Amino acid sequence: MENVTLRMLAEKLQLSTATISKALNNSHEISKETKQRVLALATELNYVPNPYASSLRKKSSSTIAVVIPEVADSYFAEAINGIETIAQEKGYHVLIYLTHENFGKEQAILRDFQSGRVDGILISVTTETAAAKHDLEQLAKEIPLVFFDRVCEEVAAAKITTDDVESGYKATEHLIANGCRNIALLSVSKNLSISNKRMEGFQQALAAHQLPFSESAVTYCSNDAAANHALIKNVIQLHQYDGIVATTEKLSTAIYLVCEELQLHIPNDIKVIGFSNLSTARFLNPSLTTITQPAFDMGKAAATLLFKALKSSGFNLQEENLVIPSTLMVRNSTVGK
Amino acid sequence: MENVTLRMLAEKLQLSTATISKALNNSHEISKETKQRVLALATELNYVPNPYASSLRKKSSSTIAVVIPEVADSYFAEAINGIETIAQEKGYHVLIYLTHENFGKEQAILRDFQSGRVDGILISVTTETAAAKHDLEQLAKEIPLVFFDRVCEEVAAAKITTDDVESGYKATEHLIANGCRNIALLSVSKNLSISNKRMEGFQQALAAHQLPFSESAVTYCSNDAAANHALIKNVIQLHQYDGIVATTEKLSTAIYLVCEELQLHIPNDIKVIGFSNLSTARFLNPSLTTITQPAFDMGKAAATLLFKALKSSGFNLQEENLVIPSTLMVRNSTVGK
Repeated sequence: MENVTLRMLAEKLQLSTATISKALNNSHEISKETKQRVLALATELNYVPNPYASSLRKKSSSTIAVVIPEVADSYFAEAINGIETIAQEKGYHVLIYLTHENFGKEQAILRDFQSGRVDGILISVTTETAAAKHDLEQLAKEIPLVFFDRVCEEVAAAKITTDDVESGYKATEHLIANGCRNIALLSVSKNLSISNKRMEGFQQALAAHQLPFSESAVTYCSNDAAANHALIKNVIQLHQYDGIVATTEKLSTAIYLVCEELQLHIPNDIKVIGFSNLSTARFLNPSLTTITQPAFDMGKAAATLLFKALKSSGFNLQEENLVIPSTLMVRNSTVGK
Repeated sequence: MENVTLRMLAEKLQLSTATISKALNNSHEISKETKQRVLALATELNYVPNPYASSLRKKSSSTIAVVIPEVADSYFAEAINGIETIAQEKGYHVLIYLTHENFGKEQAILRDFQSGRVDGILISVTTETAAAKHDLEQLAKEIPLVFFDRVCEEVAAAKITTDDVESGYKATEHLIANGCRNIALLSVSKNLSISNKRMEGFQQALAAHQLPFSESAVTYCSNDAAANHALIKNVIQLHQYDGIVATTEKLSTAIYLVCEELQLHIPNDIKVIGFSNLSTARFLNPSLTTITQPAFDMGKAAATLLFKALKSSGFNLQEENLVIPSTLMVRNSTVGK
């Protein structure tokens, strides 16, 4: 199919390309009759405006970016669905960029945004992002930007989070209530504020129940499944924990594998609770007790805020800060014996 | 931060914008000294080219699109990782577009591509896509396009698939070998060639073992979890199947839920095998026997083909057709009693 251009429309209608363009953009300078003639031909020939040329003129791409570490995590998959629900209503494209927890890749993506490729940004940062705070602050001044879940606390930008301190507390207290006295926490980053908040809740719950906190109870895992497996196995063998809080979804299943290998029974030998939105959590053996995040609602809320800012330049996006609570779902991995 | 433009660079260096542009594009018309002066200032001022303006000049966006039904399916999450491995090597952005199994949305996305937003397309179509074959054929003539997994057989374009007939056969034969005589197939579409091929394998395996095939053994599920649940429950209650083949990941866990409600024991009362790349398959209760697709490798292969076409216009992409086999992973949901 030959591309139908403005010039072709102009030639066929014996009008200037400027007139065609104005007619298509419903300019008041053009008569109703001319607009109708132009529109009729454009429809007949299936004219599609070139988005780059059109973006240069309108300074809008009708596109928002979602920047996330990965899609192989139920939280992000659900959050994307929430975001798309809103974007679809507004007639916007959603482009998903994956950082794979790689700070360099995130930086390259952010740099690309500075040049105006998208109208707004929804971002959940990598575990390594601490150093990029300045760049993100700068970007948030130039393009409407909303952090969700993995936020940079220090950056003045809109933030949608869940109650991570309370959730860390609730998870730990649940283990204590079920008899655990020697509890480990698996974290993924010293940089991520959500990781630090979950740890804060963990420490508070221990203190509230007169249990000692030791630095060695916290293990920092990476993005490398094999390395995490060895690390978790080593930690469990060394310290004989009776309870474990996994602060991300993948770490929960890593624990299941290690326990199988060490012939440790969940929950009799060790109780496991995970921050997870896994749809299979209830079908696991044993079914997994989770802190379930409001992923879909967080995605919806983040997108809603972003579109408010896109619609009204007077809206002070940077001051928005919404916290949506998570839910403790008790299942068999923490209850018994 | 004020946007640094070509014009600003030109003014500061007392050169024309054309010279600046040629220097940045390493043109042979510009002296080495001038190039170095331009590059030094551009670096110092953190000059970022406008991608739309730059795309108009270069007719390239250094971007490929991945169009898929959803990300909440392990197959697609893994395939994306395979695609990104190759795209990263080539210095390309990957934009992910989700159709949510919605044909209208897929059409809107495809229409947008006609205008040159991306350099190449990797697509796995929706369950409703049959009617779009003409559009896809047209698009494949205009922009390098590779189908992966959910292909349109009739469209002349590159295709990466797995051995769906053989996999349907293998799954069914495995159930028969484990004593099943009354086997159901859960499908998702009459339009998708991969669904039809899996059913073809199912029928062939029944025939090879002198078991009758009845149309009623095939149930077509939708994208609606609640409706699927009711449908599967009804089908299992009505026909008392002793084995069931789920041709997509979500249907496997739907079966687990129904069996729990009907108090049917897997595998003693009914054996279950699912087409699935779920990382939790081995931890389910009981662990799920799967046909595991080479998702990562299929993503890599699709991207590799696409970049071959982008690099060399002489490469006949449309004739490429690669089949990578799936693997039967036997677990407890099909073995026992």
